[in-house]
Amino acid sequence: MMNWISRNNILIVGLGLMGGSYAKALKRLGFKVEAIDSRPESIRFAEENGLIDRGYDHPDETAIRKADVIIFALYPEILKDWISEHQFLFKYGLLITDVTGVKSCIVYDVQQMLRDDVEYVPSHPMAGREVSGVENADDTIFHGANFIVAPTEKNTEAGIEWCRGLGKILGCRKISVLTPEEHDEMIGFVSQLTHVIAVSLMTCNDNTHLVDYTGDSFRDLTRIASINENMWSELFLMNKKYLLQHMDAFIAELNEFRGLLAEDDKEGLKEKMRLSTERHAFFIQ
Amino acid sequence: MMNWISRNNILIVGLGLMGGSYAKALKRLGFKVEAIDSRPESIRFAEENGLIDRGYDHPDETAIRKADVIIFALYPEILKDWISEHQFLFKYGLLITDVTGVKSCIVYDVQQMLRDDVEYVPSHPMAGREVSGVENADDTIFHGANFIVAPTEKNTEAGIEWCRGLGKILGCRKISVLTPEEHDEMIGFVSQLTHVIAVSLMTCNDNTHLVDYTGDSFRDLTRIASINENMWSELFLMNKKYLLQHMDAFIAELNEFRGLLAEDDKEGLKEKMRLSTERHAFFIQ
Repeated sequence: MMNWISRNNILIVGLGLMGGSYAKALKRLGFKVEAIDSRPESIRFAEENGLIDRGYDHPDETAIRKADVIIFALYPEILKDWISEHQFLFKYGLLITDVTGVKSCIVYDVQQMLRDDVEYVPSHPMAGREVSGVENADDTIFHGANFIVAPTEKNTEAGIEWCRGLGKILGCRKISVLTPEEHDEMIGFVSQLTHVIAVSLMTCNDNTHLVDYTGDSFRDLTRIASINENMWSELFLMNKKYLLQHMDAFIAELNEFRGLLAEDDKEGLKEKMRLSTERHAFFIQ
Repeated sequence: MMNWISRNNILIVGLGLMGGSYAKALKRLGFKVEAIDSRPESIRFAEENGLIDRGYDHPDETAIRKADVIIFALYPEILKDWISEHQFLFKYGLLITDVTGVKSCIVYDVQQMLRDDVEYVPSHPMAGREVSGVENADDTIFHGANFIVAPTEKNTEAGIEWCRGLGKILGCRKISVLTPEEHDEMIGFVSQLTHVIAVSLMTCNDNTHLVDYTGDSFRDLTRIASINENMWSELFLMNKKYLLQHMDAFIAELNEFRGLLAEDDKEGLKEKMRLSTERHAFFIQ
């Protein structure tokens, strides 16, 4: 298997915000970057703005054949089909990684069907923006972000190391290795539950008349309430098991807080707040 | 009653983060600013850093007597007692306002007991920081913030106008006038419910090991999770009626979302997200 420095030809499949941001970063770092996206305007934009060396609005055979690494930045449900359909074209020893926000429901199926000489190492850059499309690509979103590699027993040390190196050269703050299940449980809490909360804050009543009265706290809690419903409904359903557990624990906690408030239990409320402040201290840098 | 330009002597009672930020702004604008706070270090800091002209670590009679305006930046429960105890010293025609985050449970009691020649106009700058103390006073927190005046039928046009003018000269973006009840209902949603959510996210499980995996969304939703438990438990209990209503609506909405997820109702989840995105558009400036 090639080491990571020798993998110079990167093919990005799916040139949206994330794919475009990877392209921008990797091109700047000196890699040869090509991309495939069904939307011709995305390809044209990326070529004209120097994000990629060359792009294709179809799964170009030559482009796929010469790739040393393929980075998938597609919707999770499309990923499996794309690989199954095109893996006969993959170069010997190809490394595949992705940006997908759920892991355990994808990785085993993909590794199961994958050619023996090709390795898929799941990874997940915990970065993003509230806008989408390659036109908003921004390679600074990785700076200071957390980067997770989520390998299985089938992965090699070399493959895992390549992905860790990828996170590092993108400028991520902290690179972690978790099992796919640990990743999904964690992501169900820190990312998916928070999106459910932001959405539910917007949908629980018609609050649009409040725009003149909001403070920072409401703006912060709803920043992510503009949400790509196609992508997130897929992510939620694919991680349903963990997300439901987290929602149940959170709803139970809200009900406990509600009980303290209803019973005028000032000391109980304070205790919750002290615990919150104490734990939050770990997250303040 | 004096008009607002002639009210030059401002007395700030309670010199913490908010009191200090008012002092800094008003001093800069040319007012004569004095302050009372029981903590001598706060007074010393404010004097040495030019936030106030003079300060007192006790309710100084002369200082109270010469004030044209008193701005209360104290805990809500202390406000009533302080006024009742010291109103015999108030200058004829004094105007009182405050920064308190709850209104209806205070304003009627205060106006009831207040001398006839003195006017109390409740107001609420929707600004703050996660840190406290006069040492962190910052008059830029008002810039772009929303400012609410919450008068009752007992208030005069002149008094309300003075408070609107105060919000304006502090640099607030939008000055609104609401009834105390409208204010409290609104604040129960945009400020109090969001704090309950941030606290419950921190207390619903031991999440401190997640610090290496968090993305922007978790950081945003928990920024306010470091919380002054003395102040907020008081605010929550004083606004219990509205906060409980909002918590119930929010919990019901979470349960509805949970149901859609449990039943794999992708279209239902998408509908919630579309509504969220649509409403959130009103809040993006």
